[in-house]
Amino acid sequence: MGRVNYFIIQQKPCLKRQGFFIFDDPINYTKMRIDKPTLLLDEIKCRKNIHRMVEKARIHNLIFRPHFKTHQSAVIGEWFREAGVSRITVSSVTMAEYFANAGWKDILIAFPANILEIDRINKLAAKINLSLTLESIETADYLHQNLKYEAGVYLKIDTGYHRTGIPSDNAEEIQAVLKRVQSIPNLNFTGLLTHAGNTYHAKSRDEIILIHHDSISKLNDLKRRFKKETTNPIISIGDTPSCSIASDFAGVDEIRPGNFIFYDVMQCQLGSCNFKDIAVLMACPVVAKHAERNEIVIYGGAVHLSKEYIIDKENKRIYGLVVKIDQVGWSDPIDKTYVSALSQEHGIIKTTKAFIDKIKVGDILGILPVHSCLTAHQMKEYLTINGKRLPKMS
Amino acid sequence: MGRVNYFIIQQKPCLKRQGFFIFDDPINYTKMRIDKPTLLLDEIKCRKNIHRMVEKARIHNLIFRPHFKTHQSAVIGEWFREAGVSRITVSSVTMAEYFANAGWKDILIAFPANILEIDRINKLAAKINLSLTLESIETADYLHQNLKYEAGVYLKIDTGYHRTGIPSDNAEEIQAVLKRVQSIPNLNFTGLLTHAGNTYHAKSRDEIILIHHDSISKLNDLKRRFKKETTNPIISIGDTPSCSIASDFAGVDEIRPGNFIFYDVMQCQLGSCNFKDIAVLMACPVVAKHAERNEIVIYGGAVHLSKEYIIDKENKRIYGLVVKIDQVGWSDPIDKTYVSALSQEHGIIKTTKAFIDKIKVGDILGILPVHSCLTAHQMKEYLTINGKRLPKMS
Repeated sequence: MGRVNYFIIQQKPCLKRQGFFIFDDPINYTKMRIDKPTLLLDEIKCRKNIHRMVEKARIHNLIFRPHFKTHQSAVIGEWFREAGVSRITVSSVTMAEYFANAGWKDILIAFPANILEIDRINKLAAKINLSLTLESIETADYLHQNLKYEAGVYLKIDTGYHRTGIPSDNAEEIQAVLKRVQSIPNLNFTGLLTHAGNTYHAKSRDEIILIHHDSISKLNDLKRRFKKETTNPIISIGDTPSCSIASDFAGVDEIRPGNFIFYDVMQCQLGSCNFKDIAVLMACPVVAKHAERNEIVIYGGAVHLSKEYIIDKENKRIYGLVVKIDQVGWSDPIDKTYVSALSQEHGIIKTTKAFIDKIKVGDILGILPVHSCLTAHQMKEYLTINGKRLPKMS
Repeated sequence: MGRVNYFIIQQKPCLKRQGFFIFDDPINYTKMRIDKPTLLLDEIKCRKNIHRMVEKARIHNLIFRPHFKTHQSAVIGEWFREAGVSRITVSSVTMAEYFANAGWKDILIAFPANILEIDRINKLAAKINLSLTLESIETADYLHQNLKYEAGVYLKIDTGYHRTGIPSDNAEEIQAVLKRVQSIPNLNFTGLLTHAGNTYHAKSRDEIILIHHDSISKLNDLKRRFKKETTNPIISIGDTPSCSIASDFAGVDEIRPGNFIFYDVMQCQLGSCNFKDIAVLMACPVVAKHAERNEIVIYGGAVHLSKEYIIDKENKRIYGLVVKIDQVGWSDPIDKTYVSALSQEHGIIKTTKAFIDKIKVGDILGILPVHSCLTAHQMKEYLTINGKRLPKMS
């Protein structure tokens, strides 16, 4: 009996074996729980992605502090714990609170410390090993006056992404912030942290490797420069493309990737993964067909997938790729078939005559997300392909 | 005493009068309720936007069936009820359930009927005047077999947007679906409906007016053509640009705009409104400054604002405009200052030296959203500028 039988909540589950999603009678969908956009999760792929990264960290003798902003689920967090993970990264105080309540004791908030949340930061610092990310003297001074408990501090260094962080070539500023942090009793300087998000703009795997080594090199230059001020700071890097593709982590102490647990179409384009590694899928009902222009309309829009897109080789804007859902998961992307536009609840799929002819209103199509972090954020829960509902932060 | 004093939950509220958001000591923010991205709502602007559209509908003798997908709040829905509105539009069965539970008795789901939700559609049709949107014989046939109660039916006509609907020039198909609907006892044909979303691509107010009249003309051509089959079908149009800008509604029976209640930067660019009409604002903490490139980093990202953007006259991509929050609401956009990039939780503001010099970490900046429907969707509640928290669907 296929795992998908869990979906069928009425009538003869054992007889319901053949591929029932896109080629079956739409009436049967009313017997299943999927009647609107639903975020499916393949637990086996997900755990495989976790174990691959755990193993990579182990081989390279790295601290593995995965970013939990991608999945935002205490249940999925347990899969990391089962794999031996005890330190995690989050991107907000709210997320730190959620995972602290789920029993995590060592949490880094990898986002410039938001001093307005000081009361909540104090409550967290009182009960767990909390680490903050800092990049200015003014924030350090504020924490000096207002932080009531000890917290670890990573200095955020900008090695080329230019989103935030102190530019790595501004050693004077880095030194000034470092000295200030070290002068504050409750702040325990931990290390230098970067997010080389510029890998997301890379044109090739080689370019990702170049950015990876450039980042590491810049952080290690700083480490050498400040060896008088600090002994053995942790060098912490974070992006999924580097952590997936690179095989040389010399000069790195800690990795903090997040997206790798699910991967997505963007990561495939970057070369971080294969389509078969993508562990989440948005199941979307077909609500209309426009055969005259080979378009299918799905219930599944910006509020489910997010408006993130990639540009493909033919300069087309892609908001998701389309797969067939089957009894054991889902297929590779269907040829020449993609989400071409999204409005609030509508998704438009461009496809071929051959495919559209097979599709009926009431079928369910699977959409591989372009950016799984944002897609997962939109939804309240996951439905695993063997029928479990996993709650998450909402 | 200014209305903003409600924000201050400790210490001498009456003394705390001068502009306290962006120019005040950051420590004071910890005494307020705003410590993370918060969706502010100006109730007066909001009610003014409602009343302007109610009045427009009254003058032109139109049924006003506002789209509630923009605000998704039962409390805000009451403001429409107080203004005399009794019929509403939503974009999903879930939203119809929410507003039916809030006491609305006449609801149109302006989204191609999703047959997989038939059980929930039946429950709704049993208790309220439900109207569905149809565009295919297959959906009509499915409802024939499965709809247990009466429902109104609007035929969705594509007058040029090409998202969905039967193309207005395909009269044969429209006639075929119309005849099928009329042959089904539980389906009460109500009218012809379009969403002229192509106004969102217009380059000028004149072009919006042209699209508006072109849509109306196409629907009325169909109405004349099918006068044997149907007497007096309702002609229903929906987009906020047309409904805001047009002054001639001859040939229209019903309007269904939604966005106008809040408006946004995109609607300003289209000419549907002025900045002073925008009724929602994302209040975002400043977490870092990069004076060397005139950039400010805020806590406020794609998960708060959505990744919707406009392209301005200088070909810049704008994810939001920046205002100062003051005691009675907020300012017009600050010159040469805009959200230039968003990641999951980070927003990057590009600005001028003059402005950045006034800003400190811990200040709160206001971001006018590019697309208020998607921004409001992201958040769990509204905080009115006089201190009330309004819940919404989440």
